[in-house]
Amino acid sequence: MKIIRSIKEMQQLAGSWKRRGYRVGFVPTMGALHEGHLSLIRQARKNNKKVIVSIFVNPTQFGPKEDFKKYPRNLSEDARLCRKEGVDVVFCPSAVEMYPSNYKTYVEIEDLSAVLCGEFRPGHFRGVATVVTKLFNIVQPDIAYLGQKDAQQAIIIKRMARDLNMPLRIEIVPTRRDRDGLALSSRNRYLTAAERKSAAVLNRALNLGHKLVADGNRNSRKIITKLKALIRKSPRTRIQYLEIVDPQDLRPVARIKGQALIALAVYLGKTRLIDNIIVRG
Amino acid sequence: MKIIRSIKEMQQLAGSWKRRGYRVGFVPTMGALHEGHLSLIRQARKNNKKVIVSIFVNPTQFGPKEDFKKYPRNLSEDARLCRKEGVDVVFCPSAVEMYPSNYKTYVEIEDLSAVLCGEFRPGHFRGVATVVTKLFNIVQPDIAYLGQKDAQQAIIIKRMARDLNMPLRIEIVPTRRDRDGLALSSRNRYLTAAERKSAAVLNRALNLGHKLVADGNRNSRKIITKLKALIRKSPRTRIQYLEIVDPQDLRPVARIKGQALIALAVYLGKTRLIDNIIVRG
Repeated sequence: MKIIRSIKEMQQLAGSWKRRGYRVGFVPTMGALHEGHLSLIRQARKNNKKVIVSIFVNPTQFGPKEDFKKYPRNLSEDARLCRKEGVDVVFCPSAVEMYPSNYKTYVEIEDLSAVLCGEFRPGHFRGVATVVTKLFNIVQPDIAYLGQKDAQQAIIIKRMARDLNMPLRIEIVPTRRDRDGLALSSRNRYLTAAERKSAAVLNRALNLGHKLVADGNRNSRKIITKLKALIRKSPRTRIQYLEIVDPQDLRPVARIKGQALIALAVYLGKTRLIDNIIVRG
Repeated sequence: MKIIRSIKEMQQLAGSWKRRGYRVGFVPTMGALHEGHLSLIRQARKNNKKVIVSIFVNPTQFGPKEDFKKYPRNLSEDARLCRKEGVDVVFCPSAVEMYPSNYKTYVEIEDLSAVLCGEFRPGHFRGVATVVTKLFNIVQPDIAYLGQKDAQQAIIIKRMARDLNMPLRIEIVPTRRDRDGLALSSRNRYLTAAERKSAAVLNRALNLGHKLVADGNRNSRKIITKLKALIRKSPRTRIQYLEIVDPQDLRPVARIKGQALIALAVYLGKTRLIDNIIVRG
């Protein structure tokens, strides 16, 4: 397995693979790899000749008061896990390699970026769209693998790839969860033991939402009220948002008809966690 | 020579060329081809295995009061010229093929897009950057050819390609001019005979600028005053801007030191023309 830090080197290798007709699978990450990432990597490994994993904590997607500095970084452990999974290249450029001085270009996806997480993290999805565009141009993958846990991110990147006619396919891989249902996230390691225990309520709330819809409830407002009440009963929780939206345009749906996305962001102490579930009315 | 209207068909053909290792040259145009375009095409033909010319009058780069509707369109004549130059593919998608309903993604280049033409055509360079990104993703060229006549556009696209790590090279081809020095432009055909005659002053003014700098003048303000005076003496002219800027960041330079770009936009009657020259102090 190669570890590449230079954009030029990565792009040249990817270009040579392209010319040889190799199918390349790509898993973009911010490192601090867990079983969720590994399930993306395994999916990529299964279906491609070459697998590239990027590890890059992208400064442009963090707000000034967010956790960019303390975001967990552990390249040697990440590289060990990638090697074990049969990854061909770990691409881990520096921030200054990706954003040299005088950097000026950004990719914006209108509407979809301003709701849910975007309402509370202005500029976040602009940073995500921009870095993913850069990574796609460097790695030139045939298939890129994203996790369903970051549902809004996956929807936005799919839309971006379609709108900009990027010559690749996006595959969304189901969320991996701990035994108590908590979605795996690099940020889970911020949690105290008490917060960790309480955090299981997020998935319980989403499952309750699923059950309510399955039982015939269609009124989003009523469902949201019940889910929020359940979460509030759990200690150390503070709900940032809990919404039921159309999975295409992310607009709130008043009555559930067809597919709907229940998405939430909840603080456990100082740690912000997100999760979601797709339901069908 | 193939004429392709479908994005999917163009992208598949380009992908198959990529896998065979063919070098592809690309000339993006809005059609109404003239000798300026043909010199780009010849440059591409000389240095690539395959040459693709796109013909697409891009709605997102026109303002609501601009000439999108009346912009000259003549596909059969353009195709004839391309065939004569040995072009392999003319790619001419429809507007709805390029921008389906619910289109949401745009590429923005900060600062560079807000000055010179950008000050008077808000959103113009966002439209240009977006359509060029789409075309690059569809055509996947090794080299794209742009004209120096649209200097700001060329600078912005070069910056965008560098910032977003697009896997290609941009080549800028010198401006082609009529005998009296008027830069070739599809919009020249809007001019009346009297306007056409008067328009030669644009190039004369730029040449005067070049001479003044060569003679040792360094004060941009004084040079600009002289050039504007010359243009104003010519009938039917109305200057929109005439500036001397740094060719990297497009910021005005007060004293010329090293390379500088003298750029102008001037109305001849209702027709807006642009031109520029690089000088060295």
